[in-house]
Amino acid sequence: MTAMFGFQIEASAGAARAGRLTLPHGAVETPVFMPVGTQGSVRALSPADLQAAGASLVLANAYHLHVRPGEAVVAKLGGLHRFMAWERPLLTDSGGFQVFSLAGFRRVDDAGVEFQSHVDGSRRTLTPESATEIQWTLGADVAMAFDHVVAGGADLATARDALERTLAWLARSARRHAELAQGSARQTLWPILQGGSHVALRVAGLRRLLALGDWTGLAIGGLSVGEPKPVMYALLDAYLMGVGFPEDLVAAVERGVDLFDCVAPTRNGRNGTAFTPDGPVNIRNAEHREDPRPLDPSCDCETCATFSRGYLRHLFVSEELLGLRLLSLHNVRYLIRLAEEMRATIRHNAFGRWADDWRRRYLHPGAA
Amino acid sequence: MTAMFGFQIEASAGAARAGRLTLPHGAVETPVFMPVGTQGSVRALSPADLQAAGASLVLANAYHLHVRPGEAVVAKLGGLHRFMAWERPLLTDSGGFQVFSLAGFRRVDDAGVEFQSHVDGSRRTLTPESATEIQWTLGADVAMAFDHVVAGGADLATARDALERTLAWLARSARRHAELAQGSARQTLWPILQGGSHVALRVAGLRRLLALGDWTGLAIGGLSVGEPKPVMYALLDAYLMGVGFPEDLVAAVERGVDLFDCVAPTRNGRNGTAFTPDGPVNIRNAEHREDPRPLDPSCDCETCATFSRGYLRHLFVSEELLGLRLLSLHNVRYLIRLAEEMRATIRHNAFGRWADDWRRRYLHPGAA
Repeated sequence: MTAMFGFQIEASAGAARAGRLTLPHGAVETPVFMPVGTQGSVRALSPADLQAAGASLVLANAYHLHVRPGEAVVAKLGGLHRFMAWERPLLTDSGGFQVFSLAGFRRVDDAGVEFQSHVDGSRRTLTPESATEIQWTLGADVAMAFDHVVAGGADLATARDALERTLAWLARSARRHAELAQGSARQTLWPILQGGSHVALRVAGLRRLLALGDWTGLAIGGLSVGEPKPVMYALLDAYLMGVGFPEDLVAAVERGVDLFDCVAPTRNGRNGTAFTPDGPVNIRNAEHREDPRPLDPSCDCETCATFSRGYLRHLFVSEELLGLRLLSLHNVRYLIRLAEEMRATIRHNAFGRWADDWRRRYLHPGAA
Repeated sequence: MTAMFGFQIEASAGAARAGRLTLPHGAVETPVFMPVGTQGSVRALSPADLQAAGASLVLANAYHLHVRPGEAVVAKLGGLHRFMAWERPLLTDSGGFQVFSLAGFRRVDDAGVEFQSHVDGSRRTLTPESATEIQWTLGADVAMAFDHVVAGGADLATARDALERTLAWLARSARRHAELAQGSARQTLWPILQGGSHVALRVAGLRRLLALGDWTGLAIGGLSVGEPKPVMYALLDAYLMGVGFPEDLVAAVERGVDLFDCVAPTRNGRNGTAFTPDGPVNIRNAEHREDPRPLDPSCDCETCATFSRGYLRHLFVSEELLGLRLLSLHNVRYLIRLAEEMRATIRHNAFGRWADDWRRRYLHPGAA
């Protein structure tokens, strides 16, 4: 799974922008939220659920699918789109983050990473080349370059070392990808910007990363972003990895980010927390016991159109599986609608005002 | 939940019949399989899933809903149909079985049963009158009379004692139900035949039960049925409680039973076992790893129309929630289609031959 990274919410000049990303399996309007299907399934949701929720792009994880069932099995079953029965665009994360966060043992050198599978403890190696091959075999629309992730609090020397390695690995990932693609447009490769929480390092890294290729997109990984210069994004679609709490999405769009993935809507949904325009709601609370209202009267998802808060609470208190799905479905739809709303307000040049109002209501409900 | 009761499969003259049960929330074609929503939710499935699977009738449990969230809460949220968002017919089990199978402490006398809630350990009492009131408040189309269930292996004296009490409680349930209904057709009450595995006791009990009212249906509870005389069912819609393995359904329909409920399709589905015309399939088996075929090529459910066995196996091996839902959905659809098929063959006077062929294939796949 992709981690949650903090995102500093600060006043900003605002470089929010709306656009369109054209991929082999369809076009994606941005800003957009991308649900996470780590193991090839968005937890508790079916492809039909995701389609109903308006998802246009789904993330899966090369590390997880490599470890289980293996990319060769996925290929034999028709590739990742067919395997998951998801005919719209897919993005696979390269496995860099998972190798550094999930594996027990790991050894990094310039060649790549040796690690232990979190599933069966077997020793495995990932290199920029093999991570690229795995993703090519899986066949997602967007592959990510293999990166060296360091902890958020890493000191400058450690962060610089990891950035240098990530840039060297990027060149190797891109070379292998070009060999595999042989000019076809079946899959595009995106780099991941690292650099810890050192802003100057990030800015220098971004310049060098841009010099390495004519990328169709760029991901910002493993960090608190600080204040990237809006001008640097002017030519790019930027994808902020692992960020997906509503307030983070609004703040990131404000700074020019186009694409997000996060397990928050499904994980929080399974924990009984629902996103609403008035802030998060814990459906287990006793106050919902006899509440006939929907979770969010402004929402058009199946959960809100069909069930009362009282019933949803009953499902959670009684540990019924349906509850996990219904709140996950609502939360995914909520973030997709939030992105839709941001696209519309950006197109009407009303984003700044909208964001202020949105934040007032979401962060301080009932204060007006 | 309703228990699994064994059903002896023996050669029989065959009294299979097709019919129609008209209830306040719609008509139900019989023989029919009724999915079990013990706590007001069929495990892992939404009402839309059930509708897509062709369910015409769903069972919920008065005991569970009484203990949590309480029938008063359900009534405040608009009654059981609205609570569950299920607009088709509903049946509630009376709680007799649960009191005798789930409660830790219990004390039975002629007045009723004192027991301990399996949820919070609180002391509670159920009587024929209160079980009837709870079900009236919940508002299902069919309520069941409160019964005294004994273990399948109970001796004749114990079984006779429980049958006598069940008959006395039936008269009280019916009286209270008539007071509440005041002639309205909003809900119908069905008796439950007890008698352990003592056939003569069952037959005598059935005669007395029939003499107690002009029932629109009758349930056979808590037993191995043995050999009920087909003639005794001639005037009745019979409902065999808790029976739902495919081979049991076929054998019971052969003997004139119209209605079944069972947790088998959802429980087995959650365990990774799928019903197919060639017998049960354990989707976790390694043989399915690279299998691109659907679970059951003859099935029209979302699972079979969308996903490969290889993907379904991956979901189970990876412990993805979606797998629980997809196999539950398939199994429910499988039993509903099995009942549909039986209705059609009965109407074409071809049931006997069909049942032989069905059994040959289901119980001995690959033997032809």
